[in-house]
Amino acid sequence: MARWEPNARERLSKAALELFQERGFDETAVADIAERAGLTERTFFRYFADKREVLFGGSSELHDLLIGSIATAPATAGPLETVAVALQASAAMFEERRKFAKVRQAVISAHPALRERELIKLVSLAEAMAEALQRRGVAEPAAALAAEAGMSVFKLAFARWTEDDEQPLSRHLREAMEQLKSLTAGSGGPSRSGRGRRAAPRRRPAARSRER
Amino acid sequence: MARWEPNARERLSKAALELFQERGFDETAVADIAERAGLTERTFFRYFADKREVLFGGSSELHDLLIGSIATAPATAGPLETVAVALQASAAMFEERRKFAKVRQAVISAHPALRERELIKLVSLAEAMAEALQRRGVAEPAAALAAEAGMSVFKLAFARWTEDDEQPLSRHLREAMEQLKSLTAGSGGPSRSGRGRRAAPRRRPAARSRER
Repeated sequence: MARWEPNARERLSKAALELFQERGFDETAVADIAERAGLTERTFFRYFADKREVLFGGSSELHDLLIGSIATAPATAGPLETVAVALQASAAMFEERRKFAKVRQAVISAHPALRERELIKLVSLAEAMAEALQRRGVAEPAAALAAEAGMSVFKLAFARWTEDDEQPLSRHLREAMEQLKSLTAGSGGPSRSGRGRRAAPRRRPAARSRER
Repeated sequence: MARWEPNARERLSKAALELFQERGFDETAVADIAERAGLTERTFFRYFADKREVLFGGSSELHDLLIGSIATAPATAGPLETVAVALQASAAMFEERRKFAKVRQAVISAHPALRERELIKLVSLAEAMAEALQRRGVAEPAAALAAEAGMSVFKLAFARWTEDDEQPLSRHLREAMEQLKSLTAGSGGPSRSGRGRRAAPRRRPAARSRER
Protein backbone atom coordinates (compact mmCIF):
# COMPACT_ATOMS: atom_id res chain seq x y z
CA MET A 1 0.00 0.00 0.00
CA ALA A 2 1.32 3.41 -0.96
CA ARG A 3 2.02 5.66 1.95
CA TRP A 4 2.74 9.34 1.92
CA GLU A 5 6.44 10.11 2.04
CA PRO A 6 7.52 13.56 3.15
CA ASN A 7 9.39 15.53 0.48
CA ALA A 8 9.37 12.55 -1.84
CA ARG A 9 9.77 14.65 -4.99
CA GLU A 10 12.72 16.57 -3.56
CA ARG A 11 14.38 13.42 -2.25
CA LEU A 12 14.01 11.72 -5.61
CA SER A 13 15.31 14.73 -7.51
CA LYS A 14 18.30 15.03 -5.24
CA ALA A 15 19.09 11.32 -5.44
CA ALA A 16 18.75 11.34 -9.23
CA LEU A 17 21.02 14.33 -9.69
CA GLU A 18 23.66 12.78 -7.42
CA LEU A 19 23.60 9.55 -9.37
CA PHE A 20 23.61 11.28 -12.76
CA GLN A 21 26.75 13.09 -11.68
CA GLU A 22 28.43 10.07 -10.10
CA ARG A 23 27.65 7.46 -12.74
CA GLY A 24 26.32 9.37 -15.72
CA PHE A 25 22.75 9.70 -16.91
CA ASP A 26 22.69 6.56 -19.06
CA GLU A 27 24.15 4.41 -16.32
CA THR A 28 21.53 5.40 -13.76
CA ALA A 29 18.34 3.34 -13.49
CA VAL A 30 15.12 4.45 -11.84
CA ALA A 31 15.62 1.61 -9.35
CA ASP A 32 18.96 3.15 -8.32
CA ILE A 33 17.33 6.54 -7.83
CA ALA A 34 14.53 5.14 -5.71
CA GLU A 35 16.98 3.15 -3.61
CA ARG A 36 19.22 6.15 -3.01
CA ALA A 37 16.19 8.19 -1.97
CA GLY A 38 14.98 5.42 0.34
CA LEU A 39 11.75 5.16 -1.64
CA THR A 40 10.19 2.71 -4.06
CA GLU A 41 10.18 2.78 -7.85
CA ARG A 42 6.44 3.07 -7.63
CA THR A 43 6.81 6.28 -5.68
CA PHE A 44 9.25 7.55 -8.30
CA PHE A 45 6.71 7.00 -11.05
CA ARG A 46 4.09 8.85 -9.05
CA TYR A 47 6.17 11.99 -9.56
CA PHE A 48 8.06 11.46 -12.81
CA ALA A 49 7.23 9.74 -16.08
CA ASP A 50 10.88 8.72 -16.48
CA LYS A 51 14.33 9.72 -15.30
CA ARG A 52 14.62 12.42 -17.94
CA GLU A 53 11.67 14.20 -16.41
CA VAL A 54 13.71 14.79 -13.25
CA LEU A 55 15.75 17.17 -15.41
CA PHE A 56 13.00 18.63 -17.57
CA GLY A 57 9.92 18.47 -15.33
CA GLY A 58 10.44 22.08 -14.25
CA SER A 59 10.00 23.49 -17.71
CA SER A 60 6.23 23.87 -17.60
CA GLU A 61 6.59 25.88 -14.39
CA LEU A 62 9.15 28.12 -16.11
CA HIS A 63 6.90 28.40 -19.15
CA ASP A 64 3.92 29.49 -17.06
CA LEU A 65 5.99 31.99 -15.12
CA LEU A 66 7.44 33.60 -18.25
CA ILE A 67 4.15 33.72 -20.13
CA GLY A 68 2.25 34.99 -17.09
CA SER A 69 4.83 37.74 -16.57
CA ILE A 70 4.63 38.82 -20.18
CA ALA A 71 0.85 38.99 -19.99
CA THR A 72 0.93 41.16 -16.86
CA ALA A 73 3.90 43.41 -17.64
CA PRO A 74 3.11 47.14 -17.61
CA ALA A 75 1.25 48.24 -20.72
CA THR A 76 3.91 50.88 -21.35
CA ALA A 77 6.75 48.34 -21.60
CA GLY A 78 8.25 47.79 -25.07
CA PRO A 79 8.70 44.23 -26.41
CA LEU A 80 12.25 43.69 -25.19
CA GLU A 81 11.56 45.34 -21.86
CA THR A 82 8.58 43.03 -21.41
CA VAL A 83 10.79 40.02 -22.02
CA ALA A 84 13.33 41.42 -19.56
CA VAL A 85 10.62 41.71 -16.90
CA ALA A 86 9.63 38.08 -17.48
CA LEU A 87 13.21 36.84 -17.26
CA GLN A 88 13.67 38.74 -14.01
CA ALA A 89 10.58 37.05 -12.64
CA SER A 90 12.14 33.66 -13.41
CA ALA A 91 15.35 34.61 -11.60
CA ALA A 92 13.76 34.19 -8.17
CA MET A 93 12.61 30.69 -9.10
CA PHE A 94 16.11 29.65 -10.14
CA GLU A 95 17.71 31.33 -7.15
CA GLU A 96 15.62 29.16 -4.84
CA ARG A 97 17.05 26.03 -6.42
CA ARG A 98 20.49 27.24 -7.28
CA LYS A 99 22.28 24.03 -6.37
CA PHE A 100 19.85 21.87 -8.33
CA ALA A 101 20.14 24.18 -11.34
CA LYS A 102 23.91 24.01 -11.34
CA VAL A 103 24.17 20.25 -11.07
CA ARG A 104 21.40 19.84 -13.63
CA GLN A 105 23.35 22.02 -16.04
CA ALA A 106 26.51 19.97 -15.56
CA VAL A 107 24.62 16.72 -16.20
CA ILE A 108 23.00 18.10 -19.35
CA SER A 109 26.23 19.59 -20.69
CA ALA A 110 27.91 16.20 -20.45
CA HIS A 111 25.28 14.42 -22.54
CA PRO A 112 24.63 15.33 -26.19
CA ALA A 113 21.07 14.02 -26.34
CA LEU A 114 20.13 15.90 -23.17
CA ARG A 115 21.78 19.02 -24.57
CA GLU A 116 19.62 18.72 -27.66
CA ARG A 117 16.52 18.30 -25.50
CA GLU A 118 17.46 21.43 -23.55
CA LEU A 119 18.00 23.44 -26.73
CA ILE A 120 14.63 22.43 -28.06
CA LYS A 121 13.04 23.34 -24.76
CA LEU A 122 14.58 26.82 -24.92
CA VAL A 123 13.46 27.32 -28.51
CA SER A 124 9.91 26.31 -27.55
CA LEU A 125 10.04 28.77 -24.67
CA ALA A 126 11.13 31.54 -27.04
CA GLU A 127 8.26 30.66 -29.39
CA ALA A 128 5.80 30.75 -26.51
CA MET A 129 7.17 34.14 -25.42
CA ALA A 130 6.78 35.48 -28.96
CA GLU A 131 3.15 34.35 -28.97
CA ALA A 132 2.56 35.96 -25.58
CA LEU A 133 4.02 39.22 -26.93
CA GLN A 134 1.70 39.01 -29.93
CA ARG A 135 -1.25 38.68 -27.56
CA ARG A 136 -0.12 41.99 -26.04
CA GLY A 137 -0.36 43.55 -29.48
CA VAL A 138 3.31 43.37 -30.43
CA ALA A 139 3.56 42.86 -34.17
CA GLU A 140 5.89 40.46 -35.94
CA PRO A 141 8.84 40.56 -36.40
CA ALA A 142 9.32 42.50 -33.16
CA ALA A 143 7.69 39.72 -31.15
CA ALA A 144 9.91 36.93 -32.50
CA LEU A 145 13.07 39.02 -32.38
CA ALA A 146 12.44 40.22 -28.82
CA ALA A 147 11.71 36.68 -27.65
CA GLU A 148 14.80 35.22 -29.33
CA ALA A 149 17.07 38.03 -28.23
CA GLY A 150 15.70 37.62 -24.71
CA MET A 151 16.42 33.90 -24.84
CA SER A 152 20.02 34.60 -25.93
CA VAL A 153 20.36 36.94 -22.98
CA PHE A 154 18.91 34.31 -20.67
CA LYS A 155 21.26 31.56 -21.89
CA LEU A 156 24.28 33.76 -21.44
CA ALA A 157 23.24 35.04 -18.01
CA PHE A 158 22.32 31.54 -16.88
CA ALA A 159 25.66 30.11 -17.97
CA ARG A 160 27.50 32.82 -16.06
CA TRP A 161 25.38 32.34 -13.01
CA THR A 162 26.06 28.60 -12.87
CA GLU A 163 29.78 29.33 -12.97
CA ASP A 164 29.65 32.11 -10.41
CA ASP A 165 28.90 31.90 -6.70
CA GLU A 166 28.87 35.65 -6.15
CA GLN A 167 26.26 37.46 -8.21
CA PRO A 168 22.57 36.65 -8.31
CA LEU A 169 20.99 35.61 -11.60
CA SER A 170 18.98 38.84 -11.70
CA ARG A 171 22.19 40.81 -11.97
CA HIS A 172 23.64 38.57 -14.69
CA LEU A 173 20.39 39.06 -16.61
CA ARG A 174 20.59 42.84 -16.35
CA GLU A 175 24.23 42.86 -17.42
CA ALA A 176 23.65 40.57 -20.40
CA MET A 177 20.70 42.71 -21.52
CA GLU A 178 22.87 45.82 -21.37
CA GLN A 179 25.55 44.03 -23.37
CA LEU A 180 23.06 43.11 -26.05
CA LYS A 181 21.91 46.71 -26.27
CA SER A 182 25.38 48.16 -26.56
CA LEU A 183 26.25 45.50 -29.14
CA THR A 184 23.34 46.33 -31.40
CA ALA A 185 23.79 50.06 -30.85
CA GLY A 186 27.45 49.84 -31.79
CA SER A 187 27.15 47.40 -34.64
CA GLY A 188 27.74 49.94 -37.37
CA GLY A 189 31.43 49.35 -36.78
CA PRO A 190 33.83 50.21 -34.03
CA SER A 191 32.47 53.73 -34.10
CA ARG A 192 29.69 53.98 -31.59
CA SER A 193 27.63 56.39 -33.61
CA GLY A 194 24.56 54.52 -34.69
CA ARG A 195 24.39 56.63 -37.82
CA GLY A 196 27.91 55.83 -38.94
CA ARG A 197 26.91 52.98 -41.16
CA ARG A 198 29.85 53.22 -43.48
CA ALA A 199 32.97 51.37 -42.49
CA ALA A 200 34.67 53.63 -39.99
CA PRO A 201 37.98 54.97 -41.23
CA ARG A 202 39.87 54.49 -38.01
CA ARG A 203 39.69 52.42 -34.90
CA ARG A 204 38.45 53.82 -31.67
CA PRO A 205 39.67 51.35 -29.09
CA ALA A 206 37.94 53.06 -26.18
CA ALA A 207 34.57 52.75 -27.86
CA ARG A 208 35.34 49.19 -28.72
CA SER A 209 36.06 48.10 -25.21
CA ARG A 210 32.74 49.57 -24.16
CA GLU A 211 31.05 47.55 -26.82
CA ARG A 212 32.58 44.26 -25.92
CA MET B 1 29.28 -1.27 -63.40
CA ALA B 2 28.80 2.26 -62.25
CA ARG B 3 28.68 4.79 -65.00
CA TRP B 4 28.80 8.51 -64.70
CA GLU B 5 25.38 10.09 -64.68
CA PRO B 6 25.11 13.75 -65.54
CA ASN B 7 23.77 15.91 -62.68
CA ALA B 8 23.13 12.84 -60.57
CA ARG B 9 23.23 14.76 -57.29
CA GLU B 10 20.79 17.39 -58.53
CA ARG B 11 18.46 14.80 -60.02
CA LEU B 12 18.46 12.83 -56.78
CA SER B 13 17.87 15.93 -54.66
CA LYS B 14 15.01 17.04 -56.85
CA ALA B 15 13.41 13.60 -56.87
CA ALA B 16 13.77 13.29 -53.10
CA LEU B 17 12.21 16.67 -52.42
CA GLU B 18 9.29 15.93 -54.73
CA LEU B 19 8.62 12.64 -52.99
CA PHE B 20 9.01 14.10 -49.49
CA GLN B 21 6.35 16.62 -50.41
CA GLU B 22 4.03 14.18 -52.16
CA ARG B 23 4.23 11.28 -49.70
CA GLY B 24 5.94 12.62 -46.63
CA PHE B 25 9.50 12.08 -45.47
CA ASP B 26 8.87 8.89 -43.51
CA GLU B 27 6.93 7.30 -46.37
CA THR B 28 9.71 7.83 -48.91
CA ALA B 29 12.37 5.14 -49.37
CA VAL B 30 15.75 5.59 -50.99
CA ALA B 31 14.61 3.12 -53.65
CA ASP B 32 11.72 5.44 -54.53
CA ILE B 33 14.06 8.40 -54.82
CA ALA B 34 16.46 6.55 -57.08
CA GLU B 35 13.61 5.31 -59.25
CA ARG B 36 12.09 8.78 -59.62
CA ALA B 37 15.51 10.14 -60.59
CA GLY B 38 16.06 7.33 -63.09
CA LEU B 39 19.15 6.21 -61.18
CA THR B 40 20.14 3.32 -58.96
CA GLU B 41 20.17 3.14 -55.17
CA ARG B 42 23.87 2.59 -55.44
CA THR B 43 24.24 5.93 -57.16
CA PHE B 44 22.16 7.53 -54.42
CA PHE B 45 24.52 6.24 -51.75
CA ARG B 46 27.49 7.57 -53.67
CA TYR B 47 26.17 11.07 -52.93
CA PHE B 48 24.21 10.77 -49.70
CA ALA B 49 24.64 8.69 -46.56
CA ASP B 50 20.86 8.50 -46.15
CA LYS B 51 17.72 10.33 -47.21
CA ARG B 52 18.05 12.85 -44.39
CA GLU B 53 21.31 14.02 -45.87
CA VAL B 54 19.45 15.26 -48.93
CA LEU B 55 18.01 17.87 -46.58
CA PHE B 56 21.02 18.54 -44.36
CA GLY B 57 23.98 17.85 -46.62
CA GLY B 58 24.33 21.54 -47.46
CA SER B 59 25.04 22.59 -43.91
CA SER B 60 28.81 22.14 -44.04
CA GLU B 61 28.92 24.39 -47.10
CA LEU B 62 26.91 27.03 -45.22
CA HIS B 63 29.15 26.60 -42.18
CA ASP B 64 32.30 27.14 -44.22
CA LEU B 65 30.86 30.15 -45.99
CA LEU B 66 29.78 31.85 -42.76
CA ILE B 67 33.00 31.10 -40.90
CA GLY B 68 35.16 32.12 -43.86
CA SER B 69 33.26 35.39 -44.21
CA ILE B 70 33.66 36.19 -40.53
CA ALA B 71 37.40 35.52 -40.74
CA THR B 72 37.83 37.82 -43.73
CA ALA B 73 35.42 40.64 -42.80
CA PRO B 74 37.01 44.11 -42.64
CA ALA B 75 39.07 44.59 -39.48
CA THR B 76 37.05 47.69 -38.68
CA ALA B 77 33.73 45.84 -38.56
CA GLY B 78 32.12 45.44 -35.13
CA PRO B 79 30.86 42.02 -33.98
CA LEU B 80 27.29 42.30 -35.21
CA GLU B 81 28.35 43.95 -38.45
CA THR B 82 30.76 41.06 -39.03
CA VAL B 83 27.91 38.61 -38.59
CA ALA B 84 25.77 40.68 -40.95
CA VAL B 85 28.51 40.51 -43.60
CA ALA B 86 28.66 36.72 -43.23
CA LEU B 87 24.88 36.34 -43.51
CA GLN B 88 24.87 38.48 -46.62
CA ALA B 89 27.52 36.22 -48.12
CA SER B 90 25.24 33.23 -47.55
CA ALA B 91 22.34 34.98 -49.27
CA ALA B 92 23.81 34.42 -52.72
CA MET B 93 24.15 30.70 -52.03
CA PHE B 94 20.49 30.42 -51.02
CA GLU B 95 19.32 32.59 -53.89
CA GLU B 96 20.87 30.16 -56.35
CA ARG B 97 18.76 27.34 -54.95
CA ARG B 98 15.68 29.23 -54.00
CA LYS B 99 13.22 26.60 -55.08
CA PHE B 100 15.08 23.81 -53.31
CA ALA B 101 15.32 25.94 -50.16
CA LYS B 102 11.60 26.62 -50.11
CA VAL B 103 10.51 23.05 -50.62
CA ARG B 104 13.11 21.86 -48.12
CA GLN B 105 11.70 24.27 -45.55
CA ALA B 106 8.16 23.03 -46.13
CA VAL B 107 9.27 19.39 -45.72
CA ILE B 108 11.15 20.17 -42.51
CA SER B 109 8.33 22.24 -41.04
CA ALA B 110 5.92 19.35 -41.48
CA HIS B 111 8.09 16.87 -39.53
CA PRO B 112 8.90 17.40 -35.83
CA ALA B 113 12.10 15.32 -35.81
CA LEU B 114 13.44 17.14 -38.87
CA ARG B 115 12.51 20.44 -37.26
CA GLU B 116 14.54 19.50 -34.21
CA ARG B 117 17.48 18.53 -36.41
CA GLU B 118 17.27 21.89 -38.16
CA LEU B 119 17.16 23.77 -34.85
CA ILE B 120 20.21 21.96 -33.61
CA LYS B 121 22.01 22.71 -36.86
CA LEU B 122 21.26 26.41 -36.47
CA VAL B 123 22.44 26.43 -32.87
CA SER B 124 25.68 24.72 -33.90
CA LEU B 125 26.14 27.33 -36.62
CA ALA B 126 25.66 30.11 -34.08
CA GLU B 127 28.26 28.48 -31.81
CA ALA B 128 30.70 28.20 -34.69
CA MET B 129 30.12 31.86 -35.57
CA ALA B 130 30.78 32.87 -31.95
CA GLU B 131 34.07 30.96 -32.04
CA ALA B 132 35.02 32.60 -35.34
CA LEU B 133 34.32 36.01 -33.79
CA GLN B 134 36.52 35.12 -30.83
CA ARG B 135 39.33 34.29 -33.22
CA ARG B 136 38.96 37.83 -34.55
CA GLY B 137 39.53 39.11 -31.02
CA VAL B 138 35.90 39.68 -30.06
CA ALA B 139 35.55 38.98 -26.35
CA GLU B 140 32.70 37.13 -24.68
CA PRO B 141 29.87 37.86 -24.21
CA ALA B 142 29.83 40.03 -27.35
CA ALA B 143 30.82 37.05 -29.51
CA ALA B 144 28.02 34.77 -28.31
CA LEU B 145 25.41 37.52 -28.28
CA ALA B 146 26.32 38.76 -31.76
CA ALA B 147 26.24 35.21 -33.15
CA GLU B 148 22.90 34.38 -31.53
CA ALA B 149 21.32 37.69 -32.45
CA GLY B 150 22.59 37.19 -36.00
CA MET B 151 21.05 33.73 -36.09
CA SER B 152 17.70 35.14 -34.94
CA VAL B 153 17.90 37.68 -37.74
CA PHE B 154 18.75 34.94 -40.20
CA LYS B 155 15.84 32.71 -39.15
CA LEU B 156 13.39 35.55 -39.44
CA ALA B 157 14.70 36.77 -42.79
CA PHE B 158 14.83 33.24 -44.15
CA ALA B 159 11.24 32.51 -43.10
CA ARG B 160 10.05 35.68 -44.82
CA TRP B 161 12.04 34.91 -47.92
CA THR B 162 10.55 31.43 -48.27
CA GLU B 163 7.07 32.99 -48.09
CA ASP B 164 7.84 35.80 -50.50
CA ASP B 165 8.56 35.67 -54.20
CA GLU B 166 9.42 39.33 -54.54
CA GLN B 167 12.35 40.40 -52.39
CA PRO B 168 15.78 38.78 -52.38
CA LEU B 169 17.05 37.22 -49.17
CA SER B 170 19.73 39.91 -48.89
CA ARG B 171 17.04 42.52 -48.46
CA HIS B 172 15.10 40.50 -45.89
CA LEU B 173 18.37 40.13 -43.98
CA ARG B 174 19.00 43.87 -43.99
CA GLU B 175 15.47 44.62 -42.89
CA ALA B 176 15.50 42.09 -40.09
CA MET B 177 18.83 43.45 -38.85
CA GLU B 178 17.40 46.98 -38.81
CA GLN B 179 14.41 45.70 -36.92
CA LEU B 180 16.61 44.10 -34.30
CA LYS B 181 18.49 47.35 -33.89
CA SER B 182 15.40 49.47 -33.49
CA LEU B 183 13.99 46.93 -31.05
CA THR B 184 17.02 47.01 -28.76
CA ALA B 185 17.36 50.77 -29.10
CA GLY B 186 13.73 51.34 -28.18
CA SER B 187 13.33 50.57 -24.51
CA GLY B 188 10.26 52.79 -24.49
CA GLY B 189 6.61 52.22 -25.15
CA PRO B 190 4.67 49.90 -27.40
CA SER B 191 4.77 52.38 -30.26
CA ARG B 192 8.14 50.87 -31.05
CA SER B 193 6.64 47.53 -31.85
CA GLY B 194 4.52 49.05 -34.56
CA ARG B 195 7.56 50.62 -36.01
CA GLY B 196 9.25 47.32 -36.69
CA ARG B 197 6.50 46.60 -39.11
CA ARG B 198 7.31 49.16 -41.69
CA ALA B 199 9.92 48.46 -44.25
CA ALA B 200 13.22 49.80 -43.00
CA PRO B 201 13.03 53.56 -43.00
CA ARG B 202 14.91 55.60 -45.54
CA ARG B 203 16.95 53.25 -47.58
CA ARG B 204 20.31 54.42 -48.70
CA PRO B 205 21.09 51.87 -51.36
CA ALA B 206 24.41 53.29 -52.43
CA ALA B 207 25.94 53.40 -48.97
CA ARG B 208 24.46 50.04 -48.12
CA SER B 209 25.73 48.18 -51.09
CA ARG B 210 29.22 49.44 -50.39
CA GLU B 211 29.28 48.03 -46.93
CA ARG B 212 27.49 44.76 -47.38
